[in-house]
Amino acid sequence: MTPLHDLTASDAATRLQSGALSCEAITRATLTRIDALEPQVRAYAHLAADEALQQARTLDQAPAQGALHGVTIAVKDVIDVAGMPTTFNTPAYAGHRPGRDAACVATARALGAVILGKTDTVEFGANGRSAATGNAYAPAHTPGGSSSGSAAAVASGMAQIAFGTQTGGSIIRPAAYNGVHAFKPTHGLVCAEGAKVYAPSLDTIGWFARGVADLALMARAFQLADAWPQAPATLAGLRIGVYKGPHWDRVDASGQQALLRSAHALADAGATLVDLSLPASFDTLPQAQQVIIRAEGRRTFLSELLAHPDQLNPNIRATAENAAGYRVPDLLRAQDQAGAARRDFDALLTQRVDLVLTPPSFGQAPAGLEDTGSPLCNSLWTLLHAPCLAVPTGLGDIGLPVGIQLVGPRGGDAQLLAWAEAIDAALTAAQGPMPKPALKS
Amino acid sequence: MTPLHDLTASDAATRLQSGALSCEAITRATLTRIDALEPQVRAYAHLAADEALQQARTLDQAPAQGALHGVTIAVKDVIDVAGMPTTFNTPAYAGHRPGRDAACVATARALGAVILGKTDTVEFGANGRSAATGNAYAPAHTPGGSSSGSAAAVASGMAQIAFGTQTGGSIIRPAAYNGVHAFKPTHGLVCAEGAKVYAPSLDTIGWFARGVADLALMARAFQLADAWPQAPATLAGLRIGVYKGPHWDRVDASGQQALLRSAHALADAGATLVDLSLPASFDTLPQAQQVIIRAEGRRTFLSELLAHPDQLNPNIRATAENAAGYRVPDLLRAQDQAGAARRDFDALLTQRVDLVLTPPSFGQAPAGLEDTGSPLCNSLWTLLHAPCLAVPTGLGDIGLPVGIQLVGPRGGDAQLLAWAEAIDAALTAAQGPMPKPALKS
Repeated sequence: MTPLHDLTASDAATRLQSGALSCEAITRATLTRIDALEPQVRAYAHLAADEALQQARTLDQAPAQGALHGVTIAVKDVIDVAGMPTTFNTPAYAGHRPGRDAACVATARALGAVILGKTDTVEFGANGRSAATGNAYAPAHTPGGSSSGSAAAVASGMAQIAFGTQTGGSIIRPAAYNGVHAFKPTHGLVCAEGAKVYAPSLDTIGWFARGVADLALMARAFQLADAWPQAPATLAGLRIGVYKGPHWDRVDASGQQALLRSAHALADAGATLVDLSLPASFDTLPQAQQVIIRAEGRRTFLSELLAHPDQLNPNIRATAENAAGYRVPDLLRAQDQAGAARRDFDALLTQRVDLVLTPPSFGQAPAGLEDTGSPLCNSLWTLLHAPCLAVPTGLGDIGLPVGIQLVGPRGGDAQLLAWAEAIDAALTAAQGPMPKPALKS
Repeated sequence: MTPLHDLTASDAATRLQSGALSCEAITRATLTRIDALEPQVRAYAHLAADEALQQARTLDQAPAQGALHGVTIAVKDVIDVAGMPTTFNTPAYAGHRPGRDAACVATARALGAVILGKTDTVEFGANGRSAATGNAYAPAHTPGGSSSGSAAAVASGMAQIAFGTQTGGSIIRPAAYNGVHAFKPTHGLVCAEGAKVYAPSLDTIGWFARGVADLALMARAFQLADAWPQAPATLAGLRIGVYKGPHWDRVDASGQQALLRSAHALADAGATLVDLSLPASFDTLPQAQQVIIRAEGRRTFLSELLAHPDQLNPNIRATAENAAGYRVPDLLRAQDQAGAARRDFDALLTQRVDLVLTPPSFGQAPAGLEDTGSPLCNSLWTLLHAPCLAVPTGLGDIGLPVGIQLVGPRGGDAQLLAWAEAIDAALTAAQGPMPKPALKS
């Protein structure tokens, strides 16, 4: 039987509704797990054990009502939780306590979620100092970033769900490195109020979970779609665009195999594979994305540069001081190019394929905690505002997770999740279940 | 001699640098003015007199350094100030105290500004309950909204500068109604972190002041341009596009005269007037703007709907519940249309005119505090992300302020401010100075 700390939110829901399970029991099991593994994983910047237990007991006193009743959630430490410190992993905000929950936390809490604490992050969720967190499968390797602690916490059974943020590749990449599922919704459909701003035209709230069903549970909670697909999605006839991307040579052998083997398994299950190429006008989008991140980041970090000049990480400082020399017209041009590309990408998907299958990272997590890996497999899709989903598919040659990334058109969040559930099931049937991390307390 | 509470920030700067004036003296004079007029104007939701005086004294103990040294600033109560309540003018957040300054407040504070307190606002800066504030020229009339208190505070000598936010017409319209200058920068160039989200693709931080020089002082503080125009702007040959707009018949006679008389005065001063028309594709932009506000607002207010269902104003609740029935594809279509229109507008300005002259409101402020007036003279420019500037030009037939609005292309903030200074000077020369409010303590 699955230990309580490994229960998915969707599985727990049935047992909670019937009264066979209490919120307190799940929370307590998760806290026990955290006691055991946190010294190795260091996912949490702040653990709120007592408050979480109190919240669980309060929930148990009334019938289950909210869609997230009893679900344990960890929150990336760039997102505010009332009564807990928000540090952004920067010395400049040591001791800072926000006065209220960020919008995404308030939504989850109102629907019955139990908030466990804050997870460690790359400084400001940007390019500052790394989290102290280790990879859930091998703590001497990076968990990826910037949502480092959120990915590792879910992977190691220390939370059912965790919130993250993505401006380049900060949700999908750590999910791939830690062997967990994750979802970055269409930009703008989840309110980002109360999360640290970095590049607001790209910043997106998303979540990590133990399966596609839990990703979808959260998506429904946030009302991401006006209508959910009525019929169960099937792979028969599904047109999957396989996109290796311009950096295929940099993906390690295990990562390449994960993509190719998944593609073949999906073809065997009835999907139609299409070798996807993107319009030539997309070739300069990576530069446009850099301009947007740096030029918007310059505005974001102006107040920090003026108020805390000596406490800023050199990378953040360079952005705030506009070391790259980007000017306002550069930003407007990049934003306009991105806007046009978004329409082109949606049209491409409408015409040629239903979704895109592409690597979520350059393969397995690099050694060390300093380098959190490259966002180059993620940033294009973030720029396109497209919903993105990470699916783990197994372990690579050094025993660390590999997986795939699924990308849909803007606003196609519910359909992408429905297809992802069918894809995940087909891959699990073909390749076996994802091995759990072998960390022992 | 100008009383201290009416000194512009630019005028004060010289005297502060030379030591002829202290920050404490300005702050004290402003607080005295507030004591006298606040009972009539009710601009402040929270006054922080002691903290402001303390801040001023601290500033006086060191040489003037920051660009806003000693400038007194009031902050719209949808923008966080550390240590002061943020109420959003909603019962749901009574007692809420944020843990830190919003980015714009932190920036101003780091540059030496004295923060006086929080100004009253329409609920959430959206379409909820009105502020208690009265018009600075006639307290039984609306000051406009949603930045009601900010406009009235600056107009009545109760702050040199005040921050506001604009999603439709929430800065420019109250500025016009209260006879003050105001500036809404190009969208995205001032970080909106720590301000209430409403429709993030439109929300813009801006400011009210006693003259164009002070608007420009703030724009420089926020590094809005990479290069400021080197030569003083002149009107000779300036191509001004006069745009009466589709609602000209709804502008009162005094408001119409303000625009026409200003246009003639500027032509007399050497400007070239161009009768401006906008592309036919712009005709449906007001509907697109409505879709964006409601569909983004639905996301914004989801957490409030779930957490405080009984405390939400019916208008906010209708938005959160998506009473209009907008779906995600409607939002994406509206955003894409807006994106295309932004490029078209910039191109139009490049080709045909340097800036646009258009009404800032339907003329003088309506009677009563419930109806804050129509944003229809403002929302198009907000949607276009264009910098907008309100210039008062005198009093209308019922003794309330009228004025004009100047609009430039995206990113043309510094050039627009330079031209506005020349335009303001020419109008003052032709029509006399703007009469001050006649409120007596």
